[in-house]
Amino acid sequence: MTAVKQSVGCVKAATEVIGDKWTPQLLRFFINEEKVRFCQLQNLAEGINPRTLSARLDRLEEMGIVQKNSTTSAARCEYSLTQKGKDLMPIIVDMESWSNTYAPVAG
Amino acid sequence: MTAVKQSVGCVKAATEVIGDKWTPQLLRFFINEEKVRFCQLQNLAEGINPRTLSARLDRLEEMGIVQKNSTTSAARCEYSLTQKGKDLMPIIVDMESWSNTYAPVAG
Repeated sequence: MTAVKQSVGCVKAATEVIGDKWTPQLLRFFINEEKVRFCQLQNLAEGINPRTLSARLDRLEEMGIVQKNSTTSAARCEYSLTQKGKDLMPIIVDMESWSNTYAPVAG
Repeated sequence: MTAVKQSVGCVKAATEVIGDKWTPQLLRFFINEEKVRFCQLQNLAEGINPRTLSARLDRLEEMGIVQKNSTTSAARCEYSLTQKGKDLMPIIVDMESWSNTYAPVAG
C-alpha cells in the first residue's frame, strides 16, 4: 500500500479537466475531427447553452487542452487539440467504450 | 460529422461515475489491490471526510462499480471491484498517466 499512498492524488489533474458534465462530451468530437468550429460544437452538443460552451472552451484553452485558430473570421473560429489535449484522447475513447457497454444510448 | 452526432452523449455514463473530485482517487486504490477496507481508503485518500467516503462508496455500490464484502465484522468490511468496476480501470490508469505527465505531484 505504501507505493499507492505516495502517489495519492495523482489522478487529480485529469479529474479537473474531464470531471464536469460537458467537457468529455466536447472533447470526444475531436476524436475524428482535427478542427471543430464553435457552431459545429454547438450543434453536436445538443442542449448546451452557448454561454456554457464558450466558458468550457475558454477553460480548455486556458488549461492548454485546445487552441483557438481564428485566422479567418471570428465567426468561423476553429478549435483544435494541443498535444496535451491529444494525450487525453485515450481516456475519452475508453470512457466512450465503457459507456457504450454499460449504458448504451438508445437510437 | 454525422457518425459523431449519432452517438452524442455516449461518454455520459462514464462521466457520471468518475466526474467528481474523489471517485477517481478512490478507484485508483483498486489498481493494485483486489480488496480495500474502509479504513484503508480513509487513510489513503487523505483529507476525505468519513461521511463523504461513505457516501461515495454507497454510490459506487448502487451503480454496481464496487461490492461490499462484510463477511467478517462490520468494522472490517472490504470493498472490491465488480466487472463493471474493473472495466473502468483503463480509464483511471490513463488519467493517472496523463496527470503524471502534465501535473506531476511533488514529493
